[in-house]
Amino acid sequence: MKNPIDDDRIARVNALKWSGGRAARSEECLAGEEPLEIRLGGRRFTLTMRTPGNDEELVAGFLFAEGFVASAHELGEIRRVRGSDGKPELNIIDVVLEVPADALRERLKRNFAISSSCGICGKTSIESITRRVAPPKGEVRVKPETILSLAAAMRSEQKIFAATGGLHAAALFDLAGKIAALREDVGRHNAVDKIIGWALAAGIVPLSDHILMVSGRLSFELVQKAAAAGVPILAAVSAPSSLAVALAEEAGTTIIGFLRDATFNIYTHPERIAP
Amino acid sequence: MKNPIDDDRIARVNALKWSGGRAARSEECLAGEEPLEIRLGGRRFTLTMRTPGNDEELVAGFLFAEGFVASAHELGEIRRVRGSDGKPELNIIDVVLEVPADALRERLKRNFAISSSCGICGKTSIESITRRVAPPKGEVRVKPETILSLAAAMRSEQKIFAATGGLHAAALFDLAGKIAALREDVGRHNAVDKIIGWALAAGIVPLSDHILMVSGRLSFELVQKAAAAGVPILAAVSAPSSLAVALAEEAGTTIIGFLRDATFNIYTHPERIAP
Repeated sequence: MKNPIDDDRIARVNALKWSGGRAARSEECLAGEEPLEIRLGGRRFTLTMRTPGNDEELVAGFLFAEGFVASAHELGEIRRVRGSDGKPELNIIDVVLEVPADALRERLKRNFAISSSCGICGKTSIESITRRVAPPKGEVRVKPETILSLAAAMRSEQKIFAATGGLHAAALFDLAGKIAALREDVGRHNAVDKIIGWALAAGIVPLSDHILMVSGRLSFELVQKAAAAGVPILAAVSAPSSLAVALAEEAGTTIIGFLRDATFNIYTHPERIAP
Repeated sequence: MKNPIDDDRIARVNALKWSGGRAARSEECLAGEEPLEIRLGGRRFTLTMRTPGNDEELVAGFLFAEGFVASAHELGEIRRVRGSDGKPELNIIDVVLEVPADALRERLKRNFAISSSCGICGKTSIESITRRVAPPKGEVRVKPETILSLAAAMRSEQKIFAATGGLHAAALFDLAGKIAALREDVGRHNAVDKIIGWALAAGIVPLSDHILMVSGRLSFELVQKAAAAGVPILAAVSAPSSLAVALAEEAGTTIIGFLRDATFNIYTHPERIAP
């Protein structure tokens, strides 16, 4: 029997391929994209467009990385809502948090109150993150050769990307460069949330002895999520943004960009990378 | 005198470059990223991380593409908030909409009410868009050679990407392939919003005689924005998602993906592309 979630991750469509001045019919594989509604205690909280699959991880990782829950325990119960026909809805998840109502109100307020009368800027955003996130624990040292090996290791596991060319990926490695988990999603932030949700369920957060790698670019948002999960080293295939680097500096995260097979750049906290 | 906005678009940092087994200091250019708070009538509405510059376009395009305003006129006044020192805040924009309060309430409700008791799925999302978006007007025909010329034309104008490797772009072309506007941003959706905001100010929406092209991938969200602006042809350097193609089919948008210098794929409404 086919797994319906697996089917949702790839869709096949007919396309017209123009090449050498001619058009030809061609069957193409597309990355699956569907909305996911996240409810808290039955009330709509947010909606994200994601690639179906590992939805519980996505929800857990999102709520933790954004500071709405402080531990796996606080996640309480994560369940699929049932439709009027009694079948589980594929695109709605309800979470009954184990967080006291007043604490939750406070966290919601804090997360939506970055700006204040003093204005809003990158500095304000960084302060709001570093106030709730502890720097990575322990002394981590990784060899440059290990870092260089990550790009190929990640690529070889990006199975849906290989089929569709249309997915981001996030991969978690141990300090020896062995891959622990990889998730693919149309949203890079979703792929990272799924990894963090997986790690929460595995009981290994904070991820003090791990390297997180993402396809594409590094934004402020991704550094925020990595810092929340206690990741000491965050690597990306492409460039970081200015605010990603500024936040990593403050949060104590080592940021690596343009990680290809033979070269990479270290933007912050380079002491963790040494031969 | 230097333009402060231009400076915010690129940041210079010192990095360590590993190559050939050795590390060397290197000055790197990063894409600027800062939060932008959008207020409606003085009340906080949303926050987006964006590359500074063309902020008024971003706000106008966002509000139009997401269905909160139906015309440039309804945008009313777009202004920068002033801080307690009297200087304009670089990261806060307030919009006094020319929309009757009850109409605005209705639009807000509609935009946050995609799901219902019948569940939420890609089909529901598509219906919520096509209900408020008219199909592109007129009969548009573009030659395949014109489509093939767009990739190089866009790349030559991506000036911040060339410096940083860290920015998405959106470009608007006329039907002969002449570039009308290009915007770069750390968020692909922001780059598209800026283009739509520019087009609103130029008085050329609906963009019935234009082609919109984006770097990277095509998500549901980008097709939604293009459809809202009346764009008949939407092209991308990389792959569309399943829901992007499904929405384009319903909305009447021609979707082109994997547009490189010699080949491209047409996923929907191919009749607009003909020799």
